[in-house]
Amino acid sequence: MRLFSMPSSGNSYKVRLLMSLLGRQCDTVDVEYETEALDRAKAEGRLPFGKAPVLELDDGRLLPESNAILFWLAEGTSFLPENAFRRAEVMSWMFWEQNQHEGVIAVRGALLFYPQRRHLATPERLAELLERGHQLLQVMEDRLATQDWLVGDAPSIADICLYGYTHTAEERSGFDMARFPAINRWLARIAALPGYVGLGE
Amino acid sequence: MRLFSMPSSGNSYKVRLLMSLLGRQCDTVDVEYETEALDRAKAEGRLPFGKAPVLELDDGRLLPESNAILFWLAEGTSFLPENAFRRAEVMSWMFWEQNQHEGVIAVRGALLFYPQRRHLATPERLAELLERGHQLLQVMEDRLATQDWLVGDAPSIADICLYGYTHTAEERSGFDMARFPAINRWLARIAALPGYVGLGE
Repeated sequence: MRLFSMPSSGNSYKVRLLMSLLGRQCDTVDVEYETEALDRAKAEGRLPFGKAPVLELDDGRLLPESNAILFWLAEGTSFLPENAFRRAEVMSWMFWEQNQHEGVIAVRGALLFYPQRRHLATPERLAELLERGHQLLQVMEDRLATQDWLVGDAPSIADICLYGYTHTAEERSGFDMARFPAINRWLARIAALPGYVGLGE
Repeated sequence: MRLFSMPSSGNSYKVRLLMSLLGRQCDTVDVEYETEALDRAKAEGRLPFGKAPVLELDDGRLLPESNAILFWLAEGTSFLPENAFRRAEVMSWMFWEQNQHEGVIAVRGALLFYPQRRHLATPERLAELLERGHQLLQVMEDRLATQDWLVGDAPSIADICLYGYTHTAEERSGFDMARFPAINRWLARIAALPGYVGLGE
């Protein structure tokens, strides 16, 4: 099993984080943004949707999409509940993450972080993403104000997937995280889990 | 069980389509775009993420996100494979749909369809979405050129979720579907499934 992983990307980091929390080992192929390694992986057909992360099984089967990889790795572990409705609730948060949160929180971070994208970072676009992102973070804040974890009473892949870009929402994406005390406590709970690794580790 | 459903939305339609294919009955509460009914459902706390569709169970529990609702309804049916890797592959397509396809194919359609959004439909934005959408549709075309269904050898919720906005990609979103013969054959296969209903039915 090996992971095609973009070191600077929260989507790839989610998978590395869950692997580490589960104590699982995996070879990693770094395919950083705009590098030859990324072009090579694409040319070799290793990235079915043209982007990382992708998990390659030992028999060569390929699984793209960060949240689908989390689903595959978490099955049978405490990170994916057995209860059918809880499982569906985990999916709700994960689809919301990919449809709403990632397209605002991660995108604003990418505009500011990658020099190649700075020309797209107009003041109007940054202001629009800032306002929308604070609304989305408020959805998480409201949930985490009444419970420690997004679904049920234990950390799940809903938490892991949303941690990916939320934990850099201030330093990288420029959101005002002082507004969200419940999110900050939740970030600290995740960072305290046994086996935790940071984005750059 | 009742479904808060936006009649004009592909995301809500996906759920109505799967319900019908499964022969399941469900009360529907119409919450059309920019109507009082939508504002009321939001004010009553029925739309946890502020948007439709949402499935409300008989005991009042709420499940938002179209693809999470599909996952919940499909469990134990032929629309969600039992094989673990096949299930994960279904998830890959469904996350890709929400992260890539929906944000381009559906968004271009919304810019053209809803009068309230037309001011955002600049020529540059429409052209950018057209180019990107054709690239995304090519990903589906390449897959469907070699197999009848997106995952395995039977229709799954991966097909249902991607049907939602692909089947109106030409008439509503303005994509050139003559380029994609394998997608067109797949659209016809879905429309021929027993229990099929159209978007306006």
